[in-house]
Amino acid sequence: MSERFSFKLSATDGRARSGTISMLRGDIQTPAFMPVGTAATVKAMKPESVRATGADIILGNTYHLMLRPGAERVAKLGGLHRFMNWDRPILTDSGGYQVMSLSDLRKLTEQGVEFRSHIDGSKHMLTPERSMEIQRLLGSDIVMAFDECPRADRPRDEIAASMELSMRWARRSRDGFDSDEDHSSRAALFGIQQGALDEDLRRVSADKLIDIGFDGYAVGGLAVGEGQEAMFGVLDYAPEMLPDNRPRYLMGVGKPDDLVGAVERGIDMFDCVLPTRSGRNGQAFTWDGALNLRNARHAEDTAPLDAKCECPTCANYSRAYLHHLQKSGEILGAMLVTEHNLWFYQQLMRAMRQAITERKFASFAEKFRNLYSSD
Amino acid sequence: MSERFSFKLSATDGRARSGTISMLRGDIQTPAFMPVGTAATVKAMKPESVRATGADIILGNTYHLMLRPGAERVAKLGGLHRFMNWDRPILTDSGGYQVMSLSDLRKLTEQGVEFRSHIDGSKHMLTPERSMEIQRLLGSDIVMAFDECPRADRPRDEIAASMELSMRWARRSRDGFDSDEDHSSRAALFGIQQGALDEDLRRVSADKLIDIGFDGYAVGGLAVGEGQEAMFGVLDYAPEMLPDNRPRYLMGVGKPDDLVGAVERGIDMFDCVLPTRSGRNGQAFTWDGALNLRNARHAEDTAPLDAKCECPTCANYSRAYLHHLQKSGEILGAMLVTEHNLWFYQQLMRAMRQAITERKFASFAEKFRNLYSSD
Repeated sequence: MSERFSFKLSATDGRARSGTISMLRGDIQTPAFMPVGTAATVKAMKPESVRATGADIILGNTYHLMLRPGAERVAKLGGLHRFMNWDRPILTDSGGYQVMSLSDLRKLTEQGVEFRSHIDGSKHMLTPERSMEIQRLLGSDIVMAFDECPRADRPRDEIAASMELSMRWARRSRDGFDSDEDHSSRAALFGIQQGALDEDLRRVSADKLIDIGFDGYAVGGLAVGEGQEAMFGVLDYAPEMLPDNRPRYLMGVGKPDDLVGAVERGIDMFDCVLPTRSGRNGQAFTWDGALNLRNARHAEDTAPLDAKCECPTCANYSRAYLHHLQKSGEILGAMLVTEHNLWFYQQLMRAMRQAITERKFASFAEKFRNLYSSD
Repeated sequence: MSERFSFKLSATDGRARSGTISMLRGDIQTPAFMPVGTAATVKAMKPESVRATGADIILGNTYHLMLRPGAERVAKLGGLHRFMNWDRPILTDSGGYQVMSLSDLRKLTEQGVEFRSHIDGSKHMLTPERSMEIQRLLGSDIVMAFDECPRADRPRDEIAASMELSMRWARRSRDGFDSDEDHSSRAALFGIQQGALDEDLRRVSADKLIDIGFDGYAVGGLAVGEGQEAMFGVLDYAPEMLPDNRPRYLMGVGKPDDLVGAVERGIDMFDCVLPTRSGRNGQAFTWDGALNLRNARHAEDTAPLDAKCECPTCANYSRAYLHHLQKSGEILGAMLVTEHNLWFYQQLMRAMRQAITERKFASFAEKFRNLYSSD
């Protein structure tokens, strides 16, 4: 618990790996799922309830936090951990992805991205250096390099140029991160592989990142509409281009079957809004597949969401009650289903870690695969 | 704990009283504040968190529950307690007030009220007998007589006629309640005094109710826009018209200073949506008065909502964070401020019970009075 960052593999089964990341704020068991705390809150959850699900680490969004309440303000208030009452590791994204998907009037140059806030129209600039500064002000434990993430269906020369830009930004991110000795002595920096669906570009990107050197490596540019088959196609080669002895993080993924298929292909870390966003919409994940609580067939069902689930929602409430809360638009409905979904995701991660340790991952994955339809 | 219903006064100070209601599902310390669980949930709160505030009893709304999910459905699912995971006493209102304020196309006759649902336009009838049946199907512990509540500013003959109708309905409510031996052997029935701001009508109403005989008595028809001064005017005589040895319940009240002034005048029980509704809107109640968390002056305030408060929100979060959550429209903002407000209300009730026991209520009330502006 007293090291800045280490990653120890404890078991492998095929390409699937299980291990532990150790950081100053606590250990992270991998494969790990990180609940998303966009605006300094995992939506509809108290932090102690997030921790109770088994989450070792959560994610914060640089883009959202820089706009509201502002990185300097968070720093002034003692950092993101204290602000939101979460004392374990926080990974922050770089803002690169969300600035392109959410902001208005953005202008991309070699220097970075100029944009207007989607909240109040105010003008901002994100560069690799500013992204590092913001993540430092937030007090991030795992800092992500600033990158650009193009749509996977763009022409190859665009994808290549974008990847090359991201690699120059990765270098500047490394330098920016290292320039603050206080923060870099306590936090870790991850690089992000780009190259969309092109194996050669993925190789070039991986080599450039390894040359710079990072604590961990993300597979970026996936889960942007390419579909599960194409994503798994990339994951059949991309993770192995990255160092064996470093955690591999698949950003923005995914559905339960996405996680299983990605772990099968050597991924160690995930984040996704799906369990929380779905929870607010009454979509629940269970060991028997997904179900929509708004459906009238649940109106008189006294069964819990999932008889195999250990979460407080399944211990205390019927599907009929959850259906009623969803139909009535009650906040408690969002709270209870979000909590269940986050428990389900963490139970799934634990089950995967155990299957890897017992070297039964292939049969676990096979059994699980049919429960969830892919997109 | 093994009696259907008893009320024992343990201390009095002036007209203020402190005591204990004992019921099969648990004791209720009075003066008591009942959080409102309109649609089978105290909004934005888990039931165990409601209990942790010190609440001994909550309120459920007959009108809302009969429309969604439906009283027969709640009964089929094991009753309201099991449905919403609250095993302590529940008081249900009769639907009389809300059917007049919320429903569409209502038609009032001697028999009852015919109306259309504000949710789906479906046609329903509420009568004293049906109200008793619904409250039985819900599994209510304290059942309220079905009444009509006119605006206090109506002409005296209308107020009088309405009160007389409510008294005939009180008789029918008593008979309806008594007709189910199973439920009436476990639950209590309260009558509701009407008569608006007219002392003579209040006297007539009280005498008629006492003649019928109830486990407890509500002062109805207040907090409907008449203002605090007029309400206190009625409370200067109305509670004493009701039996000393029975709990007196002021329905739908109120602001913290309303509660203090009403306890001072002999009231034992309250319910109000104010702490929960205000919590969702970022309005917090504290020992230094009310404050609005949306106000920009809280943006960098590292202090808790209330340094004297023992609630989890004040233990873990700054005003700056709560301000951020409110500005961002986050569900957690509603959760944390609602929780604080319910804690504040229960701490206020405890402080009043203690002040009565120590026979210091007058000085407590005087000190408190200036914190909150009246409407």
